[in-house]
Amino acid sequence: MTNIKTLDTPTLLLDHQKLLKNISDIADFANEQGVSYRPHIKTHKSVRIAQLQVEAGAVGITTAKISEAEVMAAGGIKDILIAYPISNPDKINRLIQLLKKGVRLKVAVDNPESLGYLQRGLEHTPFTLEVWIKVNSGLNRCGVEPGKEALLLAKAIMTHSKLKLGGIFTHAGHSYAAKTYEEIESIGLQEGLAVVESANACEQAGIPISVRSVGSTPTFKIAGKVPGVTEIRPGNAVFFDAIQVGLGVTNFENCAVTILASVVGVYKDRIIFDTGSKSLCLDKGAHGNQTVSGFGEIIGHPEVLIERLSEEHGIGVFVQETHLKLNDKVQIIPNHACTVVNQFEEYVFHENGQVIDVWKVDARGMVK
Amino acid sequence: MTNIKTLDTPTLLLDHQKLLKNISDIADFANEQGVSYRPHIKTHKSVRIAQLQVEAGAVGITTAKISEAEVMAAGGIKDILIAYPISNPDKINRLIQLLKKGVRLKVAVDNPESLGYLQRGLEHTPFTLEVWIKVNSGLNRCGVEPGKEALLLAKAIMTHSKLKLGGIFTHAGHSYAAKTYEEIESIGLQEGLAVVESANACEQAGIPISVRSVGSTPTFKIAGKVPGVTEIRPGNAVFFDAIQVGLGVTNFENCAVTILASVVGVYKDRIIFDTGSKSLCLDKGAHGNQTVSGFGEIIGHPEVLIERLSEEHGIGVFVQETHLKLNDKVQIIPNHACTVVNQFEEYVFHENGQVIDVWKVDARGMVK
Repeated sequence: MTNIKTLDTPTLLLDHQKLLKNISDIADFANEQGVSYRPHIKTHKSVRIAQLQVEAGAVGITTAKISEAEVMAAGGIKDILIAYPISNPDKINRLIQLLKKGVRLKVAVDNPESLGYLQRGLEHTPFTLEVWIKVNSGLNRCGVEPGKEALLLAKAIMTHSKLKLGGIFTHAGHSYAAKTYEEIESIGLQEGLAVVESANACEQAGIPISVRSVGSTPTFKIAGKVPGVTEIRPGNAVFFDAIQVGLGVTNFENCAVTILASVVGVYKDRIIFDTGSKSLCLDKGAHGNQTVSGFGEIIGHPEVLIERLSEEHGIGVFVQETHLKLNDKVQIIPNHACTVVNQFEEYVFHENGQVIDVWKVDARGMVK
Repeated sequence: MTNIKTLDTPTLLLDHQKLLKNISDIADFANEQGVSYRPHIKTHKSVRIAQLQVEAGAVGITTAKISEAEVMAAGGIKDILIAYPISNPDKINRLIQLLKKGVRLKVAVDNPESLGYLQRGLEHTPFTLEVWIKVNSGLNRCGVEPGKEALLLAKAIMTHSKLKLGGIFTHAGHSYAAKTYEEIESIGLQEGLAVVESANACEQAGIPISVRSVGSTPTFKIAGKVPGVTEIRPGNAVFFDAIQVGLGVTNFENCAVTILASVVGVYKDRIIFDTGSKSLCLDKGAHGNQTVSGFGEIIGHPEVLIERLSEEHGIGVFVQETHLKLNDKVQIIPNHACTVVNQFEEYVFHENGQVIDVWKVDARGMVK
């Protein structure tokens, strides 16, 4: 057996039991509510973790980019929502390749112009493409406005022979800007309503909407309870991180991913770890928000605050006296697991501090 | 010939002529001043670019991590400064492997305790290790204080049979916090003096210091002129980026690295690009500073400011009316080239917008 504290640093560690608990917590919630579970894999980018999620009951997965979907499809995941607007003809050709491979693909749409690109791309193929309308529930990134605009787009989709409307979805990423948990609850409720009201508007016009999908990690347990919602898509909840703790969504004990780091220097007023922005990343919140103060939580060492990062150095200051010394190893809970995981080639899986396996971050860097 | 505007996005582009000009500008400065040039390769992480630098006259390279040095050594680069404190016995064993391969290795030291670890690691090998004293010229990260503390460490090195003192160096990374170019000039001067005064203190005590090395990208043309300095080590200057432009160090025309991105959505009050924090990164300055306002400069489109980033979305706002439309492609000069390059597997080299080659980011993710 190899103890994690003997590993080279910095290393990306994944606590197997915490991972399994987080996955089953989401699956249990989905079961209780009678909604589907379609995790966003941008957090873990691992085929094997996606398979664990499917084994736990996920109906499929969500990706941001086509290249992520390609990696997951090659790994045997066959039901994929690409929650991203796609209009470029070369990218549409890659969607067709996924359809050829038998992937049950769904793609986000949020404007009439993109429907034309998709229709033309598919025209000389035997395929129709399932599209889901993305509605803007307040993040103000992509999406049509809920209600009337969603209905207009739904009607436009009906006029395109190669497109099939399968669902309406949203992502309440603005929950990461919430100052209180009450605010998250309010945003989660709005998120659910934005989707359900849009679906209702369509159905009243005779357009059936079978999937009504919601879910950021902060909000999925709220939006997922709104009557009429049929699916949740949390990503980060598979690992959690210091930002989620800062938002009041979970606690440090549930954070499954840590960075093993070494003390490489101790000075009068500071301590240096061998992990900087090229491993811990600069995120202090998601979507441009600031939720936490330092750059990661050092487990068992609240007396040290990682105050700033160079590329390969984490500079800690002393909140209180510390006994940490040169060559000591620590586990750091990252602020934002989704970007940190993407810096590494592989996860070292451990149970109670003993290494049990090494898994690849398969879709690392898949931004295309 | 392939025009870059036909490439899939996001893609990391490298302008060949700008790269060559930047390299020769540094080499010319070094020649004129009669100092050596030892570029930090953490910016490009490419063996072939390191080779271009050596062909232009670099005496060797600088790395932060051992894993970067291992990649560069495997690629044929034989003179390497690892500008990072190393005390862990397993890491010291990897230094010994590099020595076995004939690498002319130099390693940073900044405290007496680490000398003991290095000595013990080398004791039963035929090798001595060249160490360079790192002095703190104001960044307050690693390093002994200049002058007396440097001399004390130099004397301690002399008592270790397996260590050989080869130089004194510093990195004035706090120049990234400068508010004016005058401040950068003042920091650069201090940087040079910190090294020279430390070297003089040693030489007056009978300890010769052959290399006195300086150089962040903002300061190397100032510190490199301080009499007694023998070497410069700029990293970022090989590419430059929006942070360097913000500091007044260069202009956008010299920025060699860009991200090719697509417009994936146009809305009433915003425009969305397919490049977020997983490609453009969140840096607004180096070492925890804030130098620029947006998240990258869109070439030819000053009317759009990239105001916030999600992981895979760049959200632009309109400073003035724009003609950018769905599927348009733009080149974005990143804020911090050093972290952005590390997100990608490869560079697409181009000349005047035509693709000429694809080079690997060999040491990508080499944080160990």
